[in-house]
Amino acid sequence: MDTVPPQFVPQLADIQAAYDRIKPYIHETPVMTCTTIDNLFGCKFFFKCETFQKGGAFKFRGAMNSVLVLSDEERRKGVVCHSSGNHAGAVALAGKTLRVDAHIVVPRDAPLCKVAAVKSYDGSLVFCEPTIEAREAACREIEERTGASFIAPYNHLPTIYGQGTISIEFLRQVPQLDAIIVPVSGGGMLGGNALAAKSLKPQLKVFGAEPTGTNDAADTARCKREGRLIAAAEAPKPKTLCDGLQARLGTLTWPLVRDHVNAILTFSEQDVIEAMRLIMTRMKIVVEPSGAAGLAAALAARRRGEDLGQNVGIVLCGGNVDLDVLFQHLETRVEGMG
Amino acid sequence: MDTVPPQFVPQLADIQAAYDRIKPYIHETPVMTCTTIDNLFGCKFFFKCETFQKGGAFKFRGAMNSVLVLSDEERRKGVVCHSSGNHAGAVALAGKTLRVDAHIVVPRDAPLCKVAAVKSYDGSLVFCEPTIEAREAACREIEERTGASFIAPYNHLPTIYGQGTISIEFLRQVPQLDAIIVPVSGGGMLGGNALAAKSLKPQLKVFGAEPTGTNDAADTARCKREGRLIAAAEAPKPKTLCDGLQARLGTLTWPLVRDHVNAILTFSEQDVIEAMRLIMTRMKIVVEPSGAAGLAAALAARRRGEDLGQNVGIVLCGGNVDLDVLFQHLETRVEGMG
Repeated sequence: MDTVPPQFVPQLADIQAAYDRIKPYIHETPVMTCTTIDNLFGCKFFFKCETFQKGGAFKFRGAMNSVLVLSDEERRKGVVCHSSGNHAGAVALAGKTLRVDAHIVVPRDAPLCKVAAVKSYDGSLVFCEPTIEAREAACREIEERTGASFIAPYNHLPTIYGQGTISIEFLRQVPQLDAIIVPVSGGGMLGGNALAAKSLKPQLKVFGAEPTGTNDAADTARCKREGRLIAAAEAPKPKTLCDGLQARLGTLTWPLVRDHVNAILTFSEQDVIEAMRLIMTRMKIVVEPSGAAGLAAALAARRRGEDLGQNVGIVLCGGNVDLDVLFQHLETRVEGMG
Repeated sequence: MDTVPPQFVPQLADIQAAYDRIKPYIHETPVMTCTTIDNLFGCKFFFKCETFQKGGAFKFRGAMNSVLVLSDEERRKGVVCHSSGNHAGAVALAGKTLRVDAHIVVPRDAPLCKVAAVKSYDGSLVFCEPTIEAREAACREIEERTGASFIAPYNHLPTIYGQGTISIEFLRQVPQLDAIIVPVSGGGMLGGNALAAKSLKPQLKVFGAEPTGTNDAADTARCKREGRLIAAAEAPKPKTLCDGLQARLGTLTWPLVRDHVNAILTFSEQDVIEAMRLIMTRMKIVVEPSGAAGLAAALAARRRGEDLGQNVGIVLCGGNVDLDVLFQHLETRVEGMG
């Protein structure tokens, strides 16, 4: 199944409606620029800083929209999701914001900073084994016991519409954009934004940013190349620092990526470290590896001699990175002062 | 000598003139807020993000003003300064911006990221031994040889006026401020902002933020307590992570601190690490230890049960911190992926 029933074909109006719905609750995130990075590339970059979104990532847009479209009756029964990443914190924060119980199923190997986010937003944490089967089983158990609504992280129309709202803001803030680069994992953010941006400005180019990983596992690039949705079983999970970019396209997101995305720009692990270094040292923005994927893709494209345009928008999609190594280093320095 | 000749008593008009002068060249830095941090304290904080100023620190304001007040003839001969920190990069960037030769004398033990900044702004780097005598001798040699104008880092009226412009912007952005907390080292930023903020809003409280260090060396607090400018020889240099907060008040800055600052809030090294953790993990802003001093001071004040007001402004004054330990950690993780 790689198409959606016609009545569900997402449109700009759906994304605009989502924007009107979530606007009172989200931050309109700032767009920042950096002369030093522009000079390195010879073009002008505009960084849409979803790092400063509530919860530290774009995921709050989709989560808020998904909870807001529920009926009062549904909201009373709560929501449930499974995630090892920013979706977990985003659903917990959406629940806290709207006073809806949020059950968050988290695999035991999730990054500590993402578990901490769920706790800080008062989500009901449920740990499970780190397999997709265990995650889904834990969610089903909660749905059956409580009647909670399942909030999927990407293959879910309210999520896709919510993520697509980034482009509505971005193109109003920077109408002269020639291209945007959006990281891709399950395709909710890329698909939603490709639809929104192309609808608002048809001549704009939309690029997906995808890690190759150390095991050559850029599955979205392969889907685009082969013109088909590749099943999870056919493609390995990428080994990458970008812990937020390890999902696969879904049946709802693939048609959007297929039809509205110009190309997928793959990048190496070295690119993502260099991109984080530029963003953190030059722009002073804390960014997680997945959040730096857009600039990593631009670095890789430059190396390959690909031209992305003169005014290039990059979505810095999240800033939830574990910085303990830095603070431990500072503690050690203080101990050494005597 | 702890007073200034009457004709030099700085006034708000001087700071306003500096602001008009530098405005075309500086960033109007954003003010950011953070619900999580507010909830921890039970008040509302407004963070003035000079981390996003050109050059990554507030120092560019004073350096630009200092170069702009020179005559064409003086500018042709260049400028010179000595600094192990953000003043070095700021003078180099001001020189680059205005096409004025900038000679930057840097002690051999300066933080690498601050030396790198000077290089990236095309400053002429001159290394010297890490003593104040060697720094001053190197500057004098350059002044005599080239006729370059010396740009002092804090005890210099154009510098003080430039730094004071932060408060003109801040109070326009957040008129409801009850207090501001400004880090103190040589007192250029604290003195200039105390004068500007008190002139604009007399009932506002101005607090200085100063590290105690591991050797109990908060000399500005001691100056205020004893009501006199304490000579450098009388007070040890603080041993602190805040490498930007190790200078002493000068003859021009002490009267401003004496007359316009309500109190000095001292903080520990643990406070500064905790403040950096909150700012970097919760606000996603890269901040250097000295840049986090304002929040560190608020943490210390809370522990002592001191009330700072309901709407508290904090100047995040710089973001030039060495993050190599973080990127090395990421490199190691990639190597381990196989």
